[in-house]
Amino acid sequence: MGNCCDRAASFFGPQKNTNVRVGLPAVCFVWQIAMVVLFGVFIRYDEESDTHWVEFRRENNITSDIENDFYFRYPSFQDVHVMIFVGFGFLMTFLKRYSYGGVGFNFLIAAFGLQWALLMQGWFHSLNPETGKITIGVESLINADFCCAGSLIAFGALLGKVSPVQTLVVALFGVTLFAVEEYIILDLLHCRDAGGSMVIHCFGGYYGLAISWVLYRPNLHLSKRFHGAVYHSDLFAMIGTLYLWMYWPSFNSAITDHGDGQHRTAINTYLALASSVLTTVAISSMSKKGGKLDMVHIQNATLAGGVAMGTAAEFMIQPYGALIVGFCVGIISTFGYLFVTPFLEKYLKLQDTCGVHNLHAVPGMLGGFIGAITAAAATEAVYGAEGLRNTFDFEGEFENRTPGTQGGFQAAGTCVSIWKTTALLRFILRFPIWADPGDDNCFDDEVYWELPEDEEIVPPVLEYNNHMIHKHQEISESNFSVDQS
Amino acid sequence: MGNCCDRAASFFGPQKNTNVRVGLPAVCFVWQIAMVVLFGVFIRYDEESDTHWVEFRRENNITSDIENDFYFRYPSFQDVHVMIFVGFGFLMTFLKRYSYGGVGFNFLIAAFGLQWALLMQGWFHSLNPETGKITIGVESLINADFCCAGSLIAFGALLGKVSPVQTLVVALFGVTLFAVEEYIILDLLHCRDAGGSMVIHCFGGYYGLAISWVLYRPNLHLSKRFHGAVYHSDLFAMIGTLYLWMYWPSFNSAITDHGDGQHRTAINTYLALASSVLTTVAISSMSKKGGKLDMVHIQNATLAGGVAMGTAAEFMIQPYGALIVGFCVGIISTFGYLFVTPFLEKYLKLQDTCGVHNLHAVPGMLGGFIGAITAAAATEAVYGAEGLRNTFDFEGEFENRTPGTQGGFQAAGTCVSIWKTTALLRFILRFPIWADPGDDNCFDDEVYWELPEDEEIVPPVLEYNNHMIHKHQEISESNFSVDQS
Amino acid sequence: MGNCCDRAASFFGPQKNTNVRVGLPAVCFVWQIAMVVLFGVFIRYDEESDTHWVEFRRENNITSDIENDFYFRYPSFQDVHVMIFVGFGFLMTFLKRYSYGGVGFNFLIAAFGLQWALLMQGWFHSLNPETGKITIGVESLINADFCCAGSLIAFGALLGKVSPVQTLVVALFGVTLFAVEEYIILDLLHCRDAGGSMVIHCFGGYYGLAISWVLYRPNLHLSKRFHGAVYHSDLFAMIGTLYLWMYWPSFNSAITDHGDGQHRTAINTYLALASSVLTTVAISSMSKKGGKLDMVHIQNATLAGGVAMGTAAEFMIQPYGALIVGFCVGIISTFGYLFVTPFLEKYLKLQDTCGVHNLHAVPGMLGGFIGAITAAAATEAVYGAEGLRNTFDFEGEFENRTPGTQGGFQAAGTCVSIWKTTALLRFILRFPIWADPGDDNCFDDEVYWELPEDEEIVPPVLEYNNHMIHKHQEISESNFSVDQS
Repeated sequence: MGNCCDRAASFFGPQKNTNVRVGLPAVCFVWQIAMVVLFGVFIRYDEESDTHWVEFRRENNITSDIENDFYFRYPSFQDVHVMIFVGFGFLMTFLKRYSYGGVGFNFLIAAFGLQWALLMQGWFHSLNPETGKITIGVESLINADFCCAGSLIAFGALLGKVSPVQTLVVALFGVTLFAVEEYIILDLLHCRDAGGSMVIHCFGGYYGLAISWVLYRPNLHLSKRFHGAVYHSDLFAMIGTLYLWMYWPSFNSAITDHGDGQHRTAINTYLALASSVLTTVAISSMSKKGGKLDMVHIQNATLAGGVAMGTAAEFMIQPYGALIVGFCVGIISTFGYLFVTPFLEKYLKLQDTCGVHNLHAVPGMLGGFIGAITAAAATEAVYGAEGLRNTFDFEGEFENRTPGTQGGFQAAGTCVSIWKTTALLRFILRFPIWADPGDDNCFDDEVYWELPEDEEIVPPVLEYNNHMIHKHQEISESNFSVDQS
Repeated sequence: MGNCCDRAASFFGPQKNTNVRVGLPAVCFVWQIAMVVLFGVFIRYDEESDTHWVEFRRENNITSDIENDFYFRYPSFQDVHVMIFVGFGFLMTFLKRYSYGGVGFNFLIAAFGLQWALLMQGWFHSLNPETGKITIGVESLINADFCCAGSLIAFGALLGKVSPVQTLVVALFGVTLFAVEEYIILDLLHCRDAGGSMVIHCFGGYYGLAISWVLYRPNLHLSKRFHGAVYHSDLFAMIGTLYLWMYWPSFNSAITDHGDGQHRTAINTYLALASSVLTTVAISSMSKKGGKLDMVHIQNATLAGGVAMGTAAEFMIQPYGALIVGFCVGIISTFGYLFVTPFLEKYLKLQDTCGVHNLHAVPGMLGGFIGAITAAAATEAVYGAEGLRNTFDFEGEFENRTPGTQGGFQAAGTCVSIWKTTALLRFILRFPIWADPGDDNCFDDEVYWELPEDEEIVPPVLEYNNHMIHKHQEISESNFSVDQS
Repeated sequence: MGNCCDRAASFFGPQKNTNVRVGLPAVCFVWQIAMVVLFGVFIRYDEESDTHWVEFRRENNITSDIENDFYFRYPSFQDVHVMIFVGFGFLMTFLKRYSYGGVGFNFLIAAFGLQWALLMQGWFHSLNPETGKITIGVESLINADFCCAGSLIAFGALLGKVSPVQTLVVALFGVTLFAVEEYIILDLLHCRDAGGSMVIHCFGGYYGLAISWVLYRPNLHLSKRFHGAVYHSDLFAMIGTLYLWMYWPSFNSAITDHGDGQHRTAINTYLALASSVLTTVAISSMSKKGGKLDMVHIQNATLAGGVAMGTAAEFMIQPYGALIVGFCVGIISTFGYLFVTPFLEKYLKLQDTCGVHNLHAVPGMLGGFIGAITAAAATEAVYGAEGLRNTFDFEGEFENRTPGTQGGFQAAGTCVSIWKTTALLRFILRFPIWADPGDDNCFDDEVYWELPEDEEIVPPVLEYNNHMIHKHQEISESNFSVDQS
């Protein structure tokens, strides 16, 4: 490894210090200890996961243990959990030399993020004023995973350009902003957003783009040799894609209403995803010589249908409505990869490694507005009086809200979700201690990971080999001259 | 890429035109738009996924939301969904240079197929004559996935030899034939086939073989260099194998009766699969010098137990019965890979890339007959009067059917499932516009996919080695000259 | 392949006979036939998976099919099933040249082990004295998978050093010892161990270490060239790690009490795992030059939290308690990989390929004692009278047991789980017929698997390349001489 760094140095001038041997352990330990303390002070089991459930059941005449929310939500929770760690994680392994970083840092961010999310979301949504405690159950775990998703999306825009310490900072702020924004959209504006088009995808996408803009690297071309896929890394990424695609119905339906709510949401998401596959393939094929398909499109744009149905999936959008949504966002997202990403980099100084702009930001925003329209169009004729009330949760202070007004608030919520505070990130993220990689070895696992002995050889790239032969010659020469002296 | 084509050309004379830049997008757009229109006309939510569920619940005295079919079926649905996209998809990545095609086209076929299946199966099974609508719920989604499976199995026989447009045509006809055949077997003959030994595997296998016979390529040996696995591609295929193997109990039990039906089916499938692993390993080891295991057998024949239990798994076949079934089909399927596939190619002009004949066609047929025997052997003593009626659904017009008769009909159903209409496929599939690959670059992703820059090098093909030797020699020479000076 | 062996021979003297062409098929056939017979004699469906369920339901006033244990346990069962076959299987693909063996033999062991486990556990726990039958349901399948886990853990210590026949013997004895030990700990001592810290992990770990000690190879360094990872093999291993990590909450909660029991267990495990990720990353980073992360630690130590919560997860350990457990074992496990494994090999003649000592043996033992302490600390104030009784199952003969006593018995159980009988293994496992690999080709798939043509090339190792250049030069020379003549 050492030599390797030196080599790089000799090529591109003095190396940046990427040593995280102090920073990373320090952050992990301190933050994890903080989590222990805060959990000790605030977090307890809710009545469905506490041993007092037996009494609670009797008091509330709950006929059976199967009525425990665990059995309504746990299967979807596990699917969501897989999406967060395998879905997002492996989707980010597509880079030829940053696969460890993609899946490994994703793992780290999410493991911290979900703890912090339980606290932040608890404080905002379920802090019991009397006891001063937050009580958690399976639904809290799902929400915590959702909350991480926001930061993981942001990480997608920064992939390969930041240090693990910086990713943790991104997660810390991401989760915090997420909870605030979620409170405004869901509680204050009383929007419905079960699948998080606005709250998760739109927010996460723009949050990531903002940071990427803050961290713009004019000389990123120096890492060009690492910036691409190899045959097998693209296959690993397909694992991520497929798990996201298959489990998205669970993602959108995980926290919707019991019964028809979860049922309908799953159906709508399933259909929207299917139709966005076909339009993605169509555009991808049209865009290349000989009609060849581009793995980048297949890996990403096929998922746009799920993102765009995040808000509307629980409404009566009807199966054909879901297909239309998937049809359109599949096209839009693929066009994004073809034209918008290059444009953003060239003119707006936005380096978006995974193209989160096309997969999350835009489809999320559209999803928000689709939700607004569907809500505004809701009628008692279609939903039934009771159904309408349940679906939009027109209860308590919101009893008299009409679908029309609801639509307005949904639209407002979407706008809110584009808002974000990034100014304060500038200083922190630039702080040298964070040890981000130099412009010449971004997208390179060699910086933060012990690589196996073969790391010079796998995966083989052309210029890279030449440059290796080259290197070997240098070495032998140098050895030779050494012998001379 | 260009060079590569030229190279191939220079080797084997003028290339076939494999340009799908017009055909593929056209088919995707037109068919997807057709889906939107047909869904708009025909498809609505069923009463369990509609907002009127609350009223429906009250009217039918359903005590709890957990009684919604969603909670009986959704976990199995997600397992089946994984089998369709990751299971079948990754199982087909074993070819060294066709992994994108395997997983990618599988993704495309299934995404279209499930939409078309919802319509076809709806028209045949659940079209409401008054409203003229088809209502869908989670069970419909499972059936749609099953219906795709038939076409994906067929695709396995054609892997690497057809264009993406042709695969879509295969899916269009496959789903249509599937629905017709399913109607005959399940509705007219009133057979039980929850796991689809007959309806899915037997049908899919023979359908694929028929097309493969239509598309016989006498000069396929020209693609010999691409026709094989590399170390890592076989590992990717193991992902597919294991997901199919692990989730097969969900596949067979997904649509069986609530309660004991699903429970028993899962147990039987679990056991049959376990025993077919041991016999597969035994035969595979016996067949090779030094008793070495062959990945092709491990990847495929281990699954035969699940296929063969597709029909009988919901009956009282008893745990040891399940083990015996797995024991036998594991042997039969492995022998198929050893002797039948070569025989078919040599004498019957059947080029069966994935050996679907041994994994699906034959075990599926056997499964059908095993089901017939088990049904014929059913007695009230074993099943209980009520149990017998529920298991075989002896109700309405079939009230007086005896297990014996049922056995007869099951056997008849198996025969029906071998029937297929392929004549009409000939013309369509041969039509030049479909742009299938030339005999000299079958099994080659380069034809339909943009490959990463390293595609010449990973995975290593013969010319590649030469080029490497070459390189190494340069190195040694250069070193040598260095020593000289 | 042949040449390859000869080559090896020429390098390291006469080869060991590794031919399993007789032994492996013989064992598979004989044992599988034995399973069929024993299942025929002993195993039947339980009342929830039998067609008599309809009557059983009526007699017991069970209101709905959803009350069938299938719906309480099946989703968790499938998650556990994935952990056994994909989790353990792919975790063992990290070796550059033993990935087939890792995933393939894991598949074989588990497929046999689960059948044998159903019998052994049945005889000890659920044999009906009147009928002389064992009745099985979904919970039995989960327990069978658990039972295999013990042997798979042991296999991890032996990975690459034993023949497939030996692995089957390891499984046969492992499952047997497991059942005996489980009977002592759970039935006689009446311990609670839902997630199997003691019964599965502690037992499996020490069982594997004992065998590894029996099979100590002084000349293992001869296989050094195969003993390591390559870039892609480490990524495959991450698939295993993540599936184990994500589904561990299902593993621990699969057989806990319905309702709050499963709910609480999942939450605790989820939290413990999250915090062990952060401490693992911290220690891993501290231990390397430049703070680089080591894949071995990320792949293994991150899971320690789940192991250590196996016993205590169903108790009221509180969320912060779970975090503390994960925090500590993450550190301990990573230190184990850094210092203990080398120490064991150097001084105690223990060659532990996967480091099961650090991931299973020690965290499992700690988990047992953590469970003992948590149990001893239980009070009615926290659990509620009823909750306390249900959680610790203080019923029947154990009605008067106090938490304090229970704690004592839990501790005793942990000690029992470290006990194992290995003497009798010595002779059997050394028996030549088992055809274990020679010291010079351990960790080499070439011994037991047909490898694709490229097996010389993928994965590339350094000395290995030289040897290739060498070989290629020979080839060219030979060609040359041919030209001469």
